[in-house]
Amino acid sequence: MSYARQMLAAYRHAFRADDEVLAAAIDALTDCAQACIADIDADLGEHAVTEMVRCIRLCLDCADVCIAAAGVASRQTAYDADVTKPLLRACLAICTSCGDECEQHAQMHEHCRVCGEACRRCEQACRDLLETLK
Amino acid sequence: MSYARQMLAAYRHAFRADDEVLAAAIDALTDCAQACIADIDADLGEHAVTEMVRCIRLCLDCADVCIAAAGVASRQTAYDADVTKPLLRACLAICTSCGDECEQHAQMHEHCRVCGEACRRCEQACRDLLETLK
Amino acid sequence: MSYARQMLAAYRHAFRADDEVLAAAIDALTDCAQACIADIDADLGEHAVTEMVRCIRLCLDCADVCIAAAGVASRQTAYDADVTKPLLRACLAICTSCGDECEQHAQMHEHCRVCGEACRRCEQACRDLLETLK
Amino acid sequence: MSYARQMLAAYRHAFRADDEVLAAAIDALTDCAQACIADIDADLGEHAVTEMVRCIRLCLDCADVCIAAAGVASRQTAYDADVTKPLLRACLAICTSCGDECEQHAQMHEHCRVCGEACRRCEQACRDLLETLK
Repeated sequence: MSYARQMLAAYRHAFRADDEVLAAAIDALTDCAQACIADIDADLGEHAVTEMVRCIRLCLDCADVCIAAAGVASRQTAYDADVTKPLLRACLAICTSCGDECEQHAQMHEHCRVCGEACRRCEQACRDLLETLK
Repeated sequence: MSYARQMLAAYRHAFRADDEVLAAAIDALTDCAQACIADIDADLGEHAVTEMVRCIRLCLDCADVCIAAAGVASRQTAYDADVTKPLLRACLAICTSCGDECEQHAQMHEHCRVCGEACRRCEQACRDLLETLK
Repeated sequence: MSYARQMLAAYRHAFRADDEVLAAAIDALTDCAQACIADIDADLGEHAVTEMVRCIRLCLDCADVCIAAAGVASRQTAYDADVTKPLLRACLAICTSCGDECEQHAQMHEHCRVCGEACRRCEQACRDLLETLK
Repeated sequence: MSYARQMLAAYRHAFRADDEVLAAAIDALTDCAQACIADIDADLGEHAVTEMVRCIRLCLDCADVCIAAAGVASRQTAYDADVTKPLLRACLAICTSCGDECEQHAQMHEHCRVCGEACRRCEQACRDLLETLK
């Protein structure tokens, strides 16, 4: 059981979102940020780094937005739809673009395949959380 | 001249946004994040910390979203409207709520007055940047 | 298998640190940051928030340092002992203090017990990584 | 007057560090993180990106460590020498390396010259703060 799940189980409050969906989203956001940070470094280590520039840029944006979304999603007791929803929409958009780009390098670079997978899982987790939120 | 402004002046590219508006937004986002981080600590030092809980929570969200928005806004060469616009809208919303809350404590706590001012400037800077972006 | 582990396995380079120790550290740092961020919010939701002030402050520092250490540890290809070692020492120190504080609230608050556990694991992971690094 | 300075002036507490030195350090850390984030993007936009790889990596580490140090330095009321001092030492080391690298590109790339200047100022600010701290 992930720490996000244990922490949510330890709260006394009722959440706006389904507990399982919320914990899965926080885990996916944290994993995706971490995968993007590692992929940027791996991209920078490739000989043909010029071809990886777009991937690096998208990973930079993706990591920043995922970290912010993980923080805001972890603070459900101060939930505000006007903040959380557009933030998750921004996150969904960057995970989609970043996942698309990573998949184009997946056959050449295993690190991009792994990162693309983390982006896809996060994209879906953002979508699921958005549907659950009121 | 701020570093954000000097860095933008050093680029060879044309930006989607007006240079002045963009540099002002990056500065306002960075300042607001910093003010929120400091205000959280000052709030925690107040005797009546129970009354500051909402302020602390909003400042936590505000700092996270401002840091992400400053990062994404600084990477204009990979500009994507589907990411930047909802992110700035989330930022505008949290700066408004956080500014409202800080202003309610402004007379009692000078640190909240200063933080509220940083939130208002950032709220306006996000609005200005959103209007400029295509 | 965590994403950190998959990403390290995908690199072509040799690392300064043992792969297993490094992946375990990156996972522990990311988990600890996430647990601290969630614990801060849960602390703020307690009636006796005044008693949680020290816990909140330590969790804030702990999250910041763990996020930075996770980033730097993920970029092993640009490894610099003069940066990584003091950073891990700072991380070890804050994880120890934060873990001590969380454990004092562990019987009252399950969320502090969980966060304390994440801090202890991270403290050990920093120690293990420091021993491995040349 | 920067927000960091205004926020410190609004505190009721006495600090471990001289107010002026502390405010200057927080400003320098925030500026340096922002300059590094912008320099990474500008480096990625250069034709000879292969030559900028080391600069990008150092800027990534530098931004991460500066953000953490700015957060911890802003929370002086929970000051702990065992955390703050090694963190500032790590920051000083990465600002020195990153400043050295940026200066090597300063004649070719104005953005590296500006970033190098921000690193040098931050290096000095970390040194000054370390000397002041007990």
